[in-house]
Amino acid sequence: MSQQYTIADYLFDRIAEAGATEIFGVPGDFNLTFLDNVIDSDKLRWVGNTNELNAGYAADGYARERGFAAMVTTFGVGELSAINATAGSFAEYAPVLHVVGAPSTALQDSKQRIHHTLGDGVFNHFIKMVEPVTVARAHLTAENAASEIDRVIRVTLKKHRPGYLLLSPDVARQPIYPPSTKLVDSAEKITSEAALADFKKALKAFLPNKTTTLMADLMVHRLGLQDQLKALIADTEIPYTTLSWGKTLLDEQSDRWAGTYAGVASRPVVKDAVENCECLIKIGVQYTDTTTAGFSQNIDKKTVVDLHYERATISGQNFAPIALEDALQALHEVMTSGINIVPKPFCREIRPHEQHGTDEEAIRQDDLWHVIADHLDHNNLVFADQGTAYFGISDVRLPEGVTCYGQPMWGSIGYTLPASLGAAIASPDKRSVLLIGDGSALLTIQEIATMIQERINPVIMLINNDGYTVERAIHGENQHYNDIPKCNWHLMPQAFGADEQNSLVLKAETMSQLKAALKTAAATTDKMVFLEVITDKHDIPPLLADISAALKPKAD
Amino acid sequence: MSQQYTIADYLFDRIAEAGATEIFGVPGDFNLTFLDNVIDSDKLRWVGNTNELNAGYAADGYARERGFAAMVTTFGVGELSAINATAGSFAEYAPVLHVVGAPSTALQDSKQRIHHTLGDGVFNHFIKMVEPVTVARAHLTAENAASEIDRVIRVTLKKHRPGYLLLSPDVARQPIYPPSTKLVDSAEKITSEAALADFKKALKAFLPNKTTTLMADLMVHRLGLQDQLKALIADTEIPYTTLSWGKTLLDEQSDRWAGTYAGVASRPVVKDAVENCECLIKIGVQYTDTTTAGFSQNIDKKTVVDLHYERATISGQNFAPIALEDALQALHEVMTSGINIVPKPFCREIRPHEQHGTDEEAIRQDDLWHVIADHLDHNNLVFADQGTAYFGISDVRLPEGVTCYGQPMWGSIGYTLPASLGAAIASPDKRSVLLIGDGSALLTIQEIATMIQERINPVIMLINNDGYTVERAIHGENQHYNDIPKCNWHLMPQAFGADEQNSLVLKAETMSQLKAALKTAAATTDKMVFLEVITDKHDIPPLLADISAALKPKAD
Repeated sequence: MSQQYTIADYLFDRIAEAGATEIFGVPGDFNLTFLDNVIDSDKLRWVGNTNELNAGYAADGYARERGFAAMVTTFGVGELSAINATAGSFAEYAPVLHVVGAPSTALQDSKQRIHHTLGDGVFNHFIKMVEPVTVARAHLTAENAASEIDRVIRVTLKKHRPGYLLLSPDVARQPIYPPSTKLVDSAEKITSEAALADFKKALKAFLPNKTTTLMADLMVHRLGLQDQLKALIADTEIPYTTLSWGKTLLDEQSDRWAGTYAGVASRPVVKDAVENCECLIKIGVQYTDTTTAGFSQNIDKKTVVDLHYERATISGQNFAPIALEDALQALHEVMTSGINIVPKPFCREIRPHEQHGTDEEAIRQDDLWHVIADHLDHNNLVFADQGTAYFGISDVRLPEGVTCYGQPMWGSIGYTLPASLGAAIASPDKRSVLLIGDGSALLTIQEIATMIQERINPVIMLINNDGYTVERAIHGENQHYNDIPKCNWHLMPQAFGADEQNSLVLKAETMSQLKAALKTAAATTDKMVFLEVITDKHDIPPLLADISAALKPKAD
Repeated sequence: MSQQYTIADYLFDRIAEAGATEIFGVPGDFNLTFLDNVIDSDKLRWVGNTNELNAGYAADGYARERGFAAMVTTFGVGELSAINATAGSFAEYAPVLHVVGAPSTALQDSKQRIHHTLGDGVFNHFIKMVEPVTVARAHLTAENAASEIDRVIRVTLKKHRPGYLLLSPDVARQPIYPPSTKLVDSAEKITSEAALADFKKALKAFLPNKTTTLMADLMVHRLGLQDQLKALIADTEIPYTTLSWGKTLLDEQSDRWAGTYAGVASRPVVKDAVENCECLIKIGVQYTDTTTAGFSQNIDKKTVVDLHYERATISGQNFAPIALEDALQALHEVMTSGINIVPKPFCREIRPHEQHGTDEEAIRQDDLWHVIADHLDHNNLVFADQGTAYFGISDVRLPEGVTCYGQPMWGSIGYTLPASLGAAIASPDKRSVLLIGDGSALLTIQEIATMIQERINPVIMLINNDGYTVERAIHGENQHYNDIPKCNWHLMPQAFGADEQNSLVLKAETMSQLKAALKTAAATTDKMVFLEVITDKHDIPPLLADISAALKPKAD
C-alpha cells in the first residue's frame, strides 16, 4: 500500500475536521479501495451498516448530536437506497455528507453498459436525482478535488443540510498535498452590522410593557445555540414553550415551562400563553402541519418578534441579513438593558400525572408516556418514531438534560431505530432510549445487529400495538392494510446477534410490569435492554387524537 | 362508503386488465383512502410489505413472472425508499407501475410546510427525481385521469419498464365512468412490412452454408417470446447458449446446450461455439460487464445476425423497425425453408460434475452449486442474489423448466429475497428457491415476515460465509468493512413469525448434510424451508474468480 497522501486522504481529513470521528455506510465495489483510506486513518473509524437506508438514518442521528456526519455508499444501488434518508436530512436540517463511490473514469469514458448503472452509458443520472435533497454536490476529478471537497463540506455545514460527493477510485488515489487552510473560515459572517443596529433600536421600542412569552423550535438546536438561549431564559422571567419539533430545547421542569405548543391541540395553559400575549418572541420556529395540528396556530403577527436563520422581524418588519446567533445576542442585550419586560402571566399545571388505569391493568397510552418520562435520566437521548411514540412523548414533561429527537417534518417511519444508533455513537457518554411502534420497527429492524456489534447500550421500547396504529387513527381503523405480520419481537435481539452478556429482553403488559421493567432498564446500563410494551391496537395518546382530528378534513 | 365508480376504481381496473391480481406496497396517510378501493375490488388483492424498498423488489419479481406489477406507496418518504427498486426495474426491464399517494389538491395549492415534503411548498420534486428511472409519469387530476392512466400503463407495458402515477385522495374519489376501450390496442404494430421483407431476403442470402450458433438473452424473456424461441430451436439443429442474464431461457439438459457464455470466463466449449462460428444468431442479447467478464467477448461483427427490441441486423446492416417477435418469426421461416443451415460442430462436456470434496468435508463453492442444481425441480423459480450465488448458479446446468432470475445489470444486493416473494405470489403453482448470501440477506431480511403471512413455501438457502465474500474477491480480502455483524440466522424465521406448522429450519456444514437437507427441502412442499449453508468466507465459485480477475484492472 502506498504511503503517499491522496485525494481520499484529503477528503477524509476534511471530514474529520468538520467534526466526524466515525463514518457510516455500506461497502461496494466502486468504493472498496478508498475505504482502505478510512481504515488507515487515525482520525476516523468505519461503522458498517446493514443497508444504505439505515446508514443514512444513522448518519442523520449522528449529525443531530455532532453537528456533522458522513456516509459512504456505492454507485446507483447504494446511493438510491439511501436517498430517502438524505431527503429526511434535508427536510429536518441534518448536515450529512454523502460520499458515493463511482465507476472509474476509464469506465465512465467508455460509455459501456456497466453494472450499477441504467445501462445507457450515462453516469450523471444519480447526481441529478439527488439535487432537490442536497445543498451542494460535486463530481470529483483530479483537477477540482480540493476546492470541491472544501466547497461542498462548507455549504453542508453552513446550511445544516446534506451534501454529495461522487468519487471514482482512480481519482481517490491521485496524489495531492494536505489542506493548508482551515476548512471553516470563522471570519465569514452573515450579519449586516447596520441591520443589527436597527434591529436593536426597534426591539428597544417594541418590547417594553408588553406581556411576553418565548417560543423556541428546532433551528436553535440545529444551529447549536441552546446554551445561548438558556442564558437568555436565565436572565429573564418570561414563560416559554417549544413546538414538538423543538422538544427538550429548554428545561421542562421549570415553573416557567408552559408546555408544548401545538395549535388547537395545545393544552389551555400553553395556548393562552402563546396566543394571548402582547409579545410573542419566536426563536428558530418553523410551523409544520403535524406540529401545529394543521396550521391551527392562532397568533396575531403584530405581536411577534421572529428570529430566524438569517433574518429577524418585529411586528412584520424585516431586518436582514442577521444571523440567528447575532439576533439572539441582541435580544439578550436589549431584554437585560433595564427596559420593562412583562412576563405573560400563566397558571402552570403543577399537578403530577394521575394514572388512569390501575397498576394491574393493561397499559394505556394516556398513562404510558408519563410513566416513561418518570423513568428517564438526564443523559438520555430519546428517539420517538413518528407514530404514537412521537405524539405520546411530545405531550409530557421530560427531565432536564434529556434530548428528544423525532422527525415530524419528514415523518419517515422506521427512521429512529438507526438514528438512535448514530446518535449513541456520536455521544458515547449518553444513552439512547428508542420509542418505536412495531409497524415502524419492522422497516429497519436489522440495524439492531449493528447496535450489538458496536456494543452500545440503548433501551429499545418496542410498542407492540399490532400494526400501524397511527394510521388506524387517520383512516381504515380495521382495514387489513393497517395490519403487519405477527412477529416474535422478543427473539429479534438474539436473531441479530445478541446474547445474555450484551442484552436483556423484557416484556410489559401491565403498568406494574412496565414500571418494574423501566427500573431494571435504567439500572442495567452496561448492555442493550429490549423492552416489548403491549398496548391496544386502537389506543392512541390524547395529542394524536387531537392532531389527527384537526388534520383529517384538510388531508382528504 | 359510496358505491359510485371513481378514478381510483378506474385505475385499479386498468391495473387488473394489465395483468395484476395482486398489488404490493406500504400504506401511508396520503394513500389510505384509496387503498379502500383495492380492498373493495374483486380483481385485486392487497399484499402489504415490510418496507417500501422490499415492496419495490417484490413487485419487480412479480413483474418478471407476470409481465406487469403494481405497487402503492406514500408521498416522499415511501416513494423515495422504493426508488432503488424502480431503478433496478428500469435497468433490468421489469414493468412495474408505481402509484404514489399525494397530499390533497387543497394542501398542495396551499404551498404550506406539509409533512412528507421538503418543507418548501413545492410538490413536484419527487416526480422529477423519478424521471430517469421511469418511461412514463403523470400527476393525475380530475381532468386528465383516464387518458393519463391509460397512457402510462400502456408505455409501461410496451417498454417493459417502470411507470409512475401521482394520485391525491381527493382526485382518487372523483366519479368517472369505467373504461369503454381496451387498454392494449393489439392493432398497434412496431414492424414495417417492407423492412421485414428485406430482412427475410437478406437472411436467405446470408445464412446458408455457414457454421451457426444461437445465443439468446434476457429480452426474449421480457418480451415473453420463450415459446417462440423454443419452437425455432426445436425445428433446427444448431447449438445454442445464453448469457447468464438469460439463464434457463432454453433447455440446458439438451445435447445442443453449449453452456453459459461469459466472454473470457466462458468454458472452452461454449467460447469456441460462439467465437469460432461463421454465423452467430443473437436474440435479445445485451452485453454487460458482469455477464461478459468486462466486455471480453471476442466476436466478429461480420458473423452476427442480431435480433433486438425493434431492429434486426445482419453483418452490420440494419433493418428497422422490426419487432423482435416478427424478426424471430421471419428467422424461423427462413431457417426452415430448406436452405442449408450448418450447425457449428462442438463437443459437449457430457461428464457429470465430479465432486471435489468428500461428503464429510466442509462444503466447497466448486461443488455447492452443482449439488443444488441436482436437487432442483422443474417448477422452481430460482432467485440468485448478486454474490457467490449468482455466479455459482450461472455456471451450472439447470433442469428443464426451472426459471433462474438474477440482477446482473443493476446488481443491488438483497434484491432477490423480496423478489422471490413477489414471483411466488405471481405464480402460485411454482416454488421459489432463494439462493442468497448472509451479507445480502441482511439488507432485506424482514420480508421473511411477509412470506410467512402470505403462506408461501419458498426454499431459502442462506449461504453463510461470514460477510461480503463477493467483495473480498474484488478488494479488501481481510478488511473489516467486508465483515457483517454475526447473526443467529436459524432464529430469523421464528423472529419474523414462523412456527413449526409453517416452516422448517435446517443447517448444513458438510456435503452429506447438504444433500440430506436438500432432499428434505424438496420433499417438504407445504411450508417454508430455511436452510443455512456454511461455506468458507474466502471460498468463491470458479466463474466469479474468472470474472473478478477480468473486471479488476478496468474497475480501478
